[in-house]
Amino acid sequence: MPHQQPVPVGIIGLGLVGGSLALRLLSSGVEVRAYDTDPATRHAAAEAGIRVYAELDELLADLPPGAVLFLATPLPQVLELMPRIAQQTDDTITVSDVVSVKGAVLQAATTAGLAHRYVGAHPMAGTTSSGFAAAAEDLLAGATWVVTLEPGTALERWLAVCDLALLAGGRVVAADAEWHDHATAWISHLPHVLAEILSSNVEPRSLAGALAAGSYRDATRVAGTRPELVEAMLVGNSGMLTEVLEGFLDQLEQATYAVRDRDVRGLVDWGHRHRTEWQERKDGVAATERTTVSTGDHGLRDWLIDLGARGGFVVSHENGTLTALT
Amino acid sequence: MPHQQPVPVGIIGLGLVGGSLALRLLSSGVEVRAYDTDPATRHAAAEAGIRVYAELDELLADLPPGAVLFLATPLPQVLELMPRIAQQTDDTITVSDVVSVKGAVLQAATTAGLAHRYVGAHPMAGTTSSGFAAAAEDLLAGATWVVTLEPGTALERWLAVCDLALLAGGRVVAADAEWHDHATAWISHLPHVLAEILSSNVEPRSLAGALAAGSYRDATRVAGTRPELVEAMLVGNSGMLTEVLEGFLDQLEQATYAVRDRDVRGLVDWGHRHRTEWQERKDGVAATERTTVSTGDHGLRDWLIDLGARGGFVVSHENGTLTALT
Repeated sequence: MPHQQPVPVGIIGLGLVGGSLALRLLSSGVEVRAYDTDPATRHAAAEAGIRVYAELDELLADLPPGAVLFLATPLPQVLELMPRIAQQTDDTITVSDVVSVKGAVLQAATTAGLAHRYVGAHPMAGTTSSGFAAAAEDLLAGATWVVTLEPGTALERWLAVCDLALLAGGRVVAADAEWHDHATAWISHLPHVLAEILSSNVEPRSLAGALAAGSYRDATRVAGTRPELVEAMLVGNSGMLTEVLEGFLDQLEQATYAVRDRDVRGLVDWGHRHRTEWQERKDGVAATERTTVSTGDHGLRDWLIDLGARGGFVVSHENGTLTALT
Repeated sequence: MPHQQPVPVGIIGLGLVGGSLALRLLSSGVEVRAYDTDPATRHAAAEAGIRVYAELDELLADLPPGAVLFLATPLPQVLELMPRIAQQTDDTITVSDVVSVKGAVLQAATTAGLAHRYVGAHPMAGTTSSGFAAAAEDLLAGATWVVTLEPGTALERWLAVCDLALLAGGRVVAADAEWHDHATAWISHLPHVLAEILSSNVEPRSLAGALAAGSYRDATRVAGTRPELVEAMLVGNSGMLTEVLEGFLDQLEQATYAVRDRDVRGLVDWGHRHRTEWQERKDGVAATERTTVSTGDHGLRDWLIDLGARGGFVVSHENGTLTALT
């Protein structure tokens, strides 16, 4: 439980993530106000007990002081909304979002003059379905949330978003937008690119298609994702992903020489060791360490960034103390 | 059921695949003679009812005319055994193997003067465990077998190996060794290389390690395979895999430009279409066509190669007729 009464929340966009967040916060006793462009979604959300506004202007005018406003629309709409949010909300409102790319959103917030009020969020949760109909309280249970912390981020605003993520049953990782985008390029966007190329080369009605089994199935699973979602992901993180791809290309060229020279043991051992240790951490069989920090600590910002860099999570905030697992 | 009494079988090496094949053929009424270098394995296999020889010489001397001899050892031992097999078995014995790489074995057989007697096999079955203790009749149930067909392969020998694979509950794909190695480089060895590089870049105790979830998990799953098995695979198919890697590098470079230019829709659509159609075929929801050919048909060889190239399988051999699904 957070240290104090959670702040009220506004949510623009009641799709899979926005809708699930609204339902989850609502059932945790948070005051939730929301808007969606789709009348049927507004109707369904109102039926579910969410305070829904028929116009975005009305929602923005009715946000209580100190509220956190989540932009839970697709990326292009988040970018478009920023200037309007800057104009129509007062300085006490913290602006957040739930998009899977953070650098582009930070840039739009900064351009709109919202840098000091912006704290980005990225709850890592399944997104194979979409829409309010697919939204559910459970979707965000146990989710890992990145909550962005830039040098200029106000810590009290960061803590407000962190508290909401914890209240939604998540665990929180602090990172700046650039690190977030670098990490997700490696673990998600690059695997998507590799899967698309690999799939493109295997004709379903061919010898390779007939022989393809487990290795191919898993290596290409994400190429089954809806093309428009994949496109939005890759384009949204274009700059960072290009850098990561260039690094990967160099390494793949080295690996090609290693295969040609039949000298692959180093590569294979290294990959195996990392993958095995990662799996042990995911399965909870690796040792974890518990650390705490006071939210009044002068070193809180550095503590949070260091925690994130080492793969640690904030798991609770009680009586002015953050507890983390690494 | 095959068209006639299956030929007797010899098996050298009673590990996971050799042991499972021995047990499965034995329970299908095939005469199985076998040898393994390990006394404990020989003992366990004899207990399971397999006719086991204490010396390889004894097995080779006791093979009935017309038998099929499977070399079911790891690749290096298969290559070493060829000259000895050539010396110690007569011309009626067909030489086969169950190794996952076929070009290197064909070359060793050819060098040993066995080209006209060699019909390679590759039953695609799980190989995460090893040894006779892990062998089981069920391992090969429903397995896809590649049975190699070169321009010089005698069709009656090919049919003998095909019949044994069908009797073992498998379905059979005809392909020459080069096509086989090309296809498996794409669907298995390349995915292993990509997984090893990707894993190497994600420190378990880092931001990326903490955020990594489904996309990363599936893209790197095979990096959890025992390093010596992966090394043997990549080194065994070194020549073909190097070519495939070079092609993939070019495509990845193009994809990097596409990401930089935010123009990825073509790549994503193409990958998605192939992956979706492949999954539909695997799930059996795509339309299949049944075709037949007489084993006496002059065009049998071309029919088989064409069938394999289109991703089709031989599923039965009865009364001189092969039935296939495409």
